[in-house]
Amino acid sequence: MKTISENRAFGGVQGVYSHASAVCGGDMTFGLFVPEEAEEGAVPVIWFLSGLSCTHENAMIKSGAQRWASDHGVAIVFPDTSPRGASVPDDAAFDLGQGAGFYVNATEAPWAKQFKMWDYVTDELPQTLFKAFPLAEDAQSITGHSMGGHGALTIAMSFPGRYRSVSAFAPIASPSTSDWGRKQFTAYLGKDKSKWAAHDATLLMKKRGFDGPMLIDQGAADQFLDLLQPEVLAEAIVQRRQNAAFRMQKGYDHSYFFVSTFMEDHMTFHAEALYG
Amino acid sequence: MKTISENRAFGGVQGVYSHASAVCGGDMTFGLFVPEEAEEGAVPVIWFLSGLSCTHENAMIKSGAQRWASDHGVAIVFPDTSPRGASVPDDAAFDLGQGAGFYVNATEAPWAKQFKMWDYVTDELPQTLFKAFPLAEDAQSITGHSMGGHGALTIAMSFPGRYRSVSAFAPIASPSTSDWGRKQFTAYLGKDKSKWAAHDATLLMKKRGFDGPMLIDQGAADQFLDLLQPEVLAEAIVQRRQNAAFRMQKGYDHSYFFVSTFMEDHMTFHAEALYG
Repeated sequence: MKTISENRAFGGVQGVYSHASAVCGGDMTFGLFVPEEAEEGAVPVIWFLSGLSCTHENAMIKSGAQRWASDHGVAIVFPDTSPRGASVPDDAAFDLGQGAGFYVNATEAPWAKQFKMWDYVTDELPQTLFKAFPLAEDAQSITGHSMGGHGALTIAMSFPGRYRSVSAFAPIASPSTSDWGRKQFTAYLGKDKSKWAAHDATLLMKKRGFDGPMLIDQGAADQFLDLLQPEVLAEAIVQRRQNAAFRMQKGYDHSYFFVSTFMEDHMTFHAEALYG
Repeated sequence: MKTISENRAFGGVQGVYSHASAVCGGDMTFGLFVPEEAEEGAVPVIWFLSGLSCTHENAMIKSGAQRWASDHGVAIVFPDTSPRGASVPDDAAFDLGQGAGFYVNATEAPWAKQFKMWDYVTDELPQTLFKAFPLAEDAQSITGHSMGGHGALTIAMSFPGRYRSVSAFAPIASPSTSDWGRKQFTAYLGKDKSKWAAHDATLLMKKRGFDGPMLIDQGAADQFLDLLQPEVLAEAIVQRRQNAAFRMQKGYDHSYFFVSTFMEDHMTFHAEALYG
């Protein structure tokens, strides 16, 4: 692993590191905030998955999450959203290819060789992190924004017992029925829709739900509401009697100003699950 | 005035606006966070002056200041750091010309026509703001980072009675004796050092000080300590018996991770002066 930068922040360290990723077939970069408490022993860790066009850097710089992670003595990891580089396939559109991994394992050409973000985020990167940093493997939670909210919800529901809590900011809630989903699933997973279901938060909610608390914030003035489709996930949550809070936030859009506004609530929500 | 963007943030509005500036000879852009309380009447305002190479955007996105401004019901304005555009003179170096106005009124060619950041920040932009937004002209404070810390300190000491409090993050404390200062003052103000003294925080502290509370944070691991020269300002503060806290922060560097870490303290400090 290579240290790209380390900055003192809120009593802890905000680091950026790169490492050779076998599943993504190249170097991957991630951000990691480790609070002061880590000097004394392993600390809980919150995963923050980012949205379309983001790198490891956007939330790390703009969400303000470190302030609350520091308050609660928890680490936050900020993975990248796809493999990157000249040898990695890409698409001219911002919502396919580099920066748009959609947290799946691609099976279709030209993506199948390197677009394995599901395995990267749920297997390879955790193994790397728990070996290298004082993080408590038995105290993990997960959150994300937009495409990353989709990733957080689908991953949390797919690994029962692993994450103590899950939250999302304006998640892509129903990718199988949205232009943020159909296009990417077709490209990465192929036309057989039965393979999409494992990556659709609403379908997973209908099928099994999440074995812990869930918090979702959605801006009521979000410019992408018709692509996010929060209403079908909200319906599924209530039908399942899922332990969840789904909040429509008046006046808020899809930006990081929305994310940073409610970051304190999300960090406090996860800290209660992690330390409760 | 033109609205470039407005985003709901922390119950208020984070706006970005542009306006025709007479003193800078072209359009200028600024950020303004207005808290929810402004719906009821004029609110106090804190000026945040940014550092070398920054625009109106850096602190607006990375400092986390809105969270605390919202808590205290104060507005924050984020001016740009220089005139900009194809018709504005520039220099290949990052620390001269566009992005490096140094908060002075240039008198030398080719800068004299448009590099009037002193007048812009202390006269034209305030007039524009107090006309257009519900801000309380009698409740202002000022802060800034690096070159902007220099601006905040020199401006605050030059307008007794205008700002209730002043603070700075890692300010350029002694530009007359630093390579961050001599080069720019020579270019903008000419070789006569007597004209520099009005723009040197340490010299102003020796001469008159500030008629209110002052807070300065400086990272002890700042990579630019030899250019910032905090020690001579600290000495001058104590010699004057200035009402001030000068804090060396162990382990912190010059980045926005440093700024955001101590932003809460600075906003609380100013709020006490503004509402006290």
